Amino acid sequence: MTKLRVHSFSISLDGYGAGPDQSLNNPLGVGGERLHEWAFQTPTFRGTHGMEGGEGGVDETFAARGERGLGATIMGRNMFGPIRGEWKDDWRGWWGDDPPFHHPVFVLTHHAHDTIPMDGGTTFHFVTEGIHEARDRALDAAGGQDVRIGGGPSTIRQFLEADLIDELHVAVVPILLGSGETLLGGLDLDELGYQIAEFTASPSAAHYVLTREA
Amino acid sequence: MTKLRVHSFSISLDGYGAGPDQSLNNPLGVGGERLHEWAFQTPTFRGTHGMEGGEGGVDETFAARGERGLGATIMGRNMFGPIRGEWKDDWRGWWGDDPPFHHPVFVLTHHAHDTIPMDGGTTFHFVTEGIHEARDRALDAAGGQDVRIGGGPSTIRQFLEADLIDELHVAVVPILLGSGETLLGGLDLDELGYQIAEFTASPSAAHYVLTREA
Repeated sequence: MTKLRVHSFSISLDGYGAGPDQSLNNPLGVGGERLHEWAFQTPTFRGTHGMEGGEGGVDETFAARGERGLGATIMGRNMFGPIRGEWKDDWRGWWGDDPPFHHPVFVLTHHAHDTIPMDGGTTFHFVTEGIHEARDRALDAAGGQDVRIGGGPSTIRQFLEADLIDELHVAVVPILLGSGETLLGGLDLDELGYQIAEFTASPSAAHYVLTREA
Repeated sequence: MTKLRVHSFSISLDGYGAGPDQSLNNPLGVGGERLHEWAFQTPTFRGTHGMEGGEGGVDETFAARGERGLGATIMGRNMFGPIRGEWKDDWRGWWGDDPPFHHPVFVLTHHAHDTIPMDGGTTFHFVTEGIHEARDRALDAAGGQDVRIGGGPSTIRQFLEADLIDELHVAVVPILLGSGETLLGGLDLDELGYQIAEFTASPSAAHYVLTREA
């Protein structure tokens, strides 16, 4: 069975998966880039962003798992860009001409948009019919591999509430953001059938893997 | 300067500091005792509860810090007992004749109650005038040592919001409670001036120490 998986999703100790006030200059919200420092140092992240080097260890183990066996990605519109409301023609994502996905990406939105082919195998598709439609199309496009739910927090929460996520890797980072978008707050994950299957920490983050009970 | 400190306060990954439905049989709420398994194995906890043995390591380091240099404890009424509304005469806390505090304990309540002297140096005092009064009386009684804020979550939140806590040790335990009392949810700890001064993990819990910026 193919799975819907979340990997390397970072939250602060106070539970926020992005800082407040996302904008062109702050794609992860104010202060949000600190959530990902643990990942920036891994060979996996550096390799997918055209850099050499990096450090092995627990963080690398988790970063690498987020690159294996995935054939498509689903993301929310805010992860794709800072534009709200109607699209403006020239936005093609945060990642430049050759985004680090290299497979079909399905962007959830209320506003239809033509497909955008990018370099390196990434194609941005836009889905206006909701998360179940996005899942069906992504599974189809993934060709037997798993589908990654990329984020942001509100997209992951929708998939969790619909009981559609099979595996969720959360990295709790020792910072306080104070406000922003909560990932798990108010969700009854126990009632939804999730359990913590793995827990291990590096000096930079505490890693948890949630799975659904069989 | 004497400090107000919180030690060994355990929360689940989903942020709850106690399970739902506290009762005589579930003093920590349903499922809440799992929050404290990391501490139960430490020599410090075992020693203060009349048992020998236990395991050293990161968990023991944090448990031991919670016993040093403290001259008084403040706690909320729900931590003292399951009774709501008017007091019934015979309740003397969860801990038997010789509670593990061995110093004055100040219980926040809306209902006045006579002081209860216990064995081993513990005395329960009841404070109806709010958290600032409790702090003043506890600091006075502590004789130059620090004051521990014991819990539960709503008591700690009140002290955090009033900017009265100098040091907060939180242990995030790899379990999901699903519902209950949140410790940090909705608090803007960044705005309140807190920062994370320490982060380290054992196989059983991730430990964070929050302090206020100078």
